[in-house]
Amino acid sequence: MTRGRPRGGSDSRERILTHARQLFAANGFRGTTVRAVADAAGVDPALVHHFHGTKRDLFLAAIALPVDPGVIVTAALDVPRERLGEAFATVVLGAWEAEHRPALEAAVRSVLVDGDGELVSSFLGQVLIARIAPLVDDPPGSGERRAAWAVTQMAGVLLLRYLRPVRPVCDEPVENVIRAIAPTLQHHLAGPPPPE
Amino acid sequence: MTRGRPRGGSDSRERILTHARQLFAANGFRGTTVRAVADAAGVDPALVHHFHGTKRDLFLAAIALPVDPGVIVTAALDVPRERLGEAFATVVLGAWEAEHRPALEAAVRSVLVDGDGELVSSFLGQVLIARIAPLVDDPPGSGERRAAWAVTQMAGVLLLRYLRPVRPVCDEPVENVIRAIAPTLQHHLAGPPPPE
Repeated sequence: MTRGRPRGGSDSRERILTHARQLFAANGFRGTTVRAVADAAGVDPALVHHFHGTKRDLFLAAIALPVDPGVIVTAALDVPRERLGEAFATVVLGAWEAEHRPALEAAVRSVLVDGDGELVSSFLGQVLIARIAPLVDDPPGSGERRAAWAVTQMAGVLLLRYLRPVRPVCDEPVENVIRAIAPTLQHHLAGPPPPE
Repeated sequence: MTRGRPRGGSDSRERILTHARQLFAANGFRGTTVRAVADAAGVDPALVHHFHGTKRDLFLAAIALPVDPGVIVTAALDVPRERLGEAFATVVLGAWEAEHRPALEAAVRSVLVDGDGELVSSFLGQVLIARIAPLVDDPPGSGERRAAWAVTQMAGVLLLRYLRPVRPVCDEPVENVIRAIAPTLQHHLAGPPPPE
């Protein structure tokens, strides 16, 4: 790819995404600026915002997620406290089992299996855990750990059901998966305060 | 590497391991025979057994695990039913936090992140889950699913603590990790029967 004056719009749009993927993978979410992506792509930062919105939007576009997990999870956790685990399991597994599955699988596989670990850390830590934490912060100060332990349970299921399929995790009906992990997610999100 | 007549003993020993890694990664644990490894390495099957014992021993040598997880877990789960979760968490986290950690991390990273997914499936499914299942098979027939769900909780913690470090999972004291997941492991291993 040659640098220099940006050519047509869709060309710039794709070039920005390519460089964003490389920079997010190398430096993580926090360590990457819109200006750095713009510089790498040879465009003005305003053009990055024009095509891709905020840095967060750019990140989601770069890892090609078809849905914003933060938005989905936030909506899902707007339920009575005693149903948090079931709601979290239902929405996450629901997204994976629906039409989004190929795109989600490709995106997570690319960052988890092929990609840079920092990107996973950035995404899970700075986007997902941070988004869940205030919703389950009872008693105050426990939200981040509650969110983190819940994410470990969910990550293990996604790993062994979709990315590295292991029987019987990968061939159980989705309803059984939800019922199996709803109680443990409930424990993490709303059970006794996590150890500190 | 040239084929043909085996040279010295330690040379054959290493060559067997190299081919075993390749075949286990390509065909999984079940799909790989000692004879196939011997053929690939250009040695007699008896020499494979002489150097590396059973197929299972060969597999463990090939992925360079310093401890046999099946043996460790079996020993750990020889506790009263109400302490299964705590025992499982303690022994697995204990192994990862001890002197084995660099070797375990390298082994799991190589099969999970760099290697072939089939190797992970084979190991977790055919070695670990199958080993745990009969120890927690109450009511009869539930053991495999109990073991599998417990492994999802443990796998998520190992992933986010050691392989793709995410705060706060990666920087909590190990005692807190054990206390955080012991109740959810207990639920999977000995709680209400898993959905079927």
